[in-house]
Amino acid sequence: MAGQLELANLNLDRGSREPLPDQLVAAIESRIVAGVLAGGVRLPTTRDLAVSLAINRGTVQAAYRKLAERGLIISRVGSGTVVRENSPVSVDFDPARLLSRRALEVTPEAAAAIAPPVIADFSRLTPDERFFPLEEFVRTLSTALTRRPDLWQYAPPPGLPELRREIAGRLAEHGITRTPDEILVTSGAQQALDLIFRTFTDPGDTVALESPTYPGALALARFAGVEVLPLPVGAQGADASALFGRRAKFVYVMPERQNPTGVTASDASRRAILDGAAAAGALVVEDGYEEPESGLSPLAARDPSRTIWLGTLSKDLVPGFRIGWVAASAQVVDRLARIKKTADFQTPLPFQAAVAEFLRVGADRRARRNRALEVEARRIAAERALRTHLPEVAWSGGNIGDALFWLQLPPGVSGRRVSEAAAARGVGVAPGADFDPRGQDCPNIRLSVSRVDKRQVETGIRVLADAVRLVQSQSGIRAMPVV
Amino acid sequence: MAGQLELANLNLDRGSREPLPDQLVAAIESRIVAGVLAGGVRLPTTRDLAVSLAINRGTVQAAYRKLAERGLIISRVGSGTVVRENSPVSVDFDPARLLSRRALEVTPEAAAAIAPPVIADFSRLTPDERFFPLEEFVRTLSTALTRRPDLWQYAPPPGLPELRREIAGRLAEHGITRTPDEILVTSGAQQALDLIFRTFTDPGDTVALESPTYPGALALARFAGVEVLPLPVGAQGADASALFGRRAKFVYVMPERQNPTGVTASDASRRAILDGAAAAGALVVEDGYEEPESGLSPLAARDPSRTIWLGTLSKDLVPGFRIGWVAASAQVVDRLARIKKTADFQTPLPFQAAVAEFLRVGADRRARRNRALEVEARRIAAERALRTHLPEVAWSGGNIGDALFWLQLPPGVSGRRVSEAAAARGVGVAPGADFDPRGQDCPNIRLSVSRVDKRQVETGIRVLADAVRLVQSQSGIRAMPVV
Repeated sequence: MAGQLELANLNLDRGSREPLPDQLVAAIESRIVAGVLAGGVRLPTTRDLAVSLAINRGTVQAAYRKLAERGLIISRVGSGTVVRENSPVSVDFDPARLLSRRALEVTPEAAAAIAPPVIADFSRLTPDERFFPLEEFVRTLSTALTRRPDLWQYAPPPGLPELRREIAGRLAEHGITRTPDEILVTSGAQQALDLIFRTFTDPGDTVALESPTYPGALALARFAGVEVLPLPVGAQGADASALFGRRAKFVYVMPERQNPTGVTASDASRRAILDGAAAAGALVVEDGYEEPESGLSPLAARDPSRTIWLGTLSKDLVPGFRIGWVAASAQVVDRLARIKKTADFQTPLPFQAAVAEFLRVGADRRARRNRALEVEARRIAAERALRTHLPEVAWSGGNIGDALFWLQLPPGVSGRRVSEAAAARGVGVAPGADFDPRGQDCPNIRLSVSRVDKRQVETGIRVLADAVRLVQSQSGIRAMPVV
Repeated sequence: MAGQLELANLNLDRGSREPLPDQLVAAIESRIVAGVLAGGVRLPTTRDLAVSLAINRGTVQAAYRKLAERGLIISRVGSGTVVRENSPVSVDFDPARLLSRRALEVTPEAAAAIAPPVIADFSRLTPDERFFPLEEFVRTLSTALTRRPDLWQYAPPPGLPELRREIAGRLAEHGITRTPDEILVTSGAQQALDLIFRTFTDPGDTVALESPTYPGALALARFAGVEVLPLPVGAQGADASALFGRRAKFVYVMPERQNPTGVTASDASRRAILDGAAAAGALVVEDGYEEPESGLSPLAARDPSRTIWLGTLSKDLVPGFRIGWVAASAQVVDRLARIKKTADFQTPLPFQAAVAEFLRVGADRRARRNRALEVEARRIAAERALRTHLPEVAWSGGNIGDALFWLQLPPGVSGRRVSEAAAARGVGVAPGADFDPRGQDCPNIRLSVSRVDKRQVETGIRVLADAVRLVQSQSGIRAMPVV
């Protein structure tokens, strides 16, 4: 029998510090756990096994006794020793049973796949790589790499000094005064946010988030097991009132062209967020994912001791970089850097060096200007098409220079169903539920022209309008006539 | 007075949904919290403030009443309204008070700085970049980048398919059979380990670690709040006996040239680890930080359903890559990939593409061969110098091809003090305490020739011997005569 053969082949280690009976128990137990010895399989007699392993019979008896005590085997006079059916140890090893409670909270995304042929993908806010001066960047990178073999080594987690200097210079243009020591380079802004959650929250803590907000922050909040205090975003920005009378660890906001609503927070709203954060004893995390353009002072300039600024090149230029940064007090930067060290040691230095040079010569500004002209052409096309094909739909965002529109569909129309219906017709949009702290469906979708050529914008929006009407009619909601 | 002036400059937002008294309360509270209005400062009368803000006096009265209820201000007939001394809200905003419990566990490293002029740095196991074919890599990277603009976009977190195929091919050479879908590319092996902790442990869970072990794993264990079950490393490898009769989430081991002991686990030890893990219901995490060379079958080849393999190019080639990988069952890879997505989305694709090409043409093998020849020359020099200058010292590791020696100093000699004394003389070594699960000092140091030119090895070890004798004499331990 296979089970017996397997046992006979056991190689016990006589030189080990582990007593032989324990070795034998472990060897048999692991085979029961692994299912090699199934329930009902008869084990060799103690005499036979002792002989085949060339060990003392007492050793085998001691091992069988322990296994019987653990409920793994049963010895009966006359019928010998058998592996117990339904033994307390699992026969199939299932790593899913070992998952942490927080890992169970992280569900895979269920974005509707856009059916080919793809007409237009309005679902993504990531920039179009064609505006990125790729060759210039590759030359910069190659030069940096060849001249600087030190870039291939480990380095202090906060980042390359020359990049931190360049970032400090860029921040100063927006009134944010930070020394290079107050800047931490991260592997994208997502990592920065992850480090902030890990450094400042325990399960059960409260974190205030705009509602709707960036899905990457919602995923981290679920993973961290924190309670989310939603701050509804209105036409002037997030409403801070919920913060008064509460305690929170931090308040995460995007005052400039908020994702997904496109709302730029008013001066009063900015002040209210800072007042509310002060009242709640909270840090403020200001996500500057878009270059500030409103001319209104960022929160990080108004209350530097309380505010952590997140910056990135991903949204403005290319996401493949995975270069982001945090600007905060030296104390906060030090704490975040310690956690970063345990997370991935450091962001690759060669990229940091190339990005530093790229910023130094202003290549990012040229790329941004090129992109801005084209995005504006796309935005105009989108605005025109929306007015033509979805005249009943209102939106926020969609102002000059914006890549995104946050559409308010007619009441009762499911954003999720519209997004599915559009995807089935080759057009991608992001349903409002993706941005909702509770994941609730709502009559909203986010439409981004970031990656859609202006010639496709009109067609794409026409198809989207068809999807809206289909969902309306299926929901028994009277469709508005097309003007 | 500054405080009053500040209040008069308040800009209340009449269009806000927040009632004016609440806005006023928040504005004053935040100034008290921020210390702008210090204890004892007199506030304007309700009449004066109402006039200067052009609001109703009742609004100011309501706000003052609320502030008094919260214990922030005190109104007395005749003496007016003043900010309370020792108000219940903090005057200084201190983010340290917001730290998570786990962040408090992460202390900065206190490595002894090597005093210049540096004679030899034996403290680091990271490879010497001079063996890395930098120009070949830069050419590969530039080509990959220029031809593939898609590499600059977001991509699925598990990694670039062509890199996962190359890794699967490399693993097959060691008997580890994995499809590309069973491989997750990470930002270095440290990230892989972090993802494993986050995916599989809750605070209070048990994780079994070799003792001594890799400090990056110890830092993560502290951060995760897990209980560490130490498995002492002996001459044959880790002793698995502690696993029997325990439950653990995973067992983290380095069977090949263990860091820091240099011990390669015997076949029996490998089997015992797997049996012990099965008995404890645990996953096995096998860190293949060094290319397997013993010819013994890796744990991942013996028990693929239970074992997660960690691979990296950092130790063998260059750390600056930050490219590592996990090979595990598709189920485990899927779970880890979900957490990776929240951590940093993805490891930069351009590097992944370059590394894939690098592996494809076998450039890593050539680099490894070049390095191995030089490391062996350094090792021989170190062995000779140790026998000459520290004849009383025994070690593990230091076998053919090894870069590291784990030195056993005479009993009672503090590894930490030796490392400090050596650092003061320009020689770096890593004290045993860095690798101890409880951080306890011990008479061990790790000496690595990874980054020390062979001409410096002898001088460096002579200085180290001086440091050992100094600490011995200071500790009242009789120094052994130099042979």
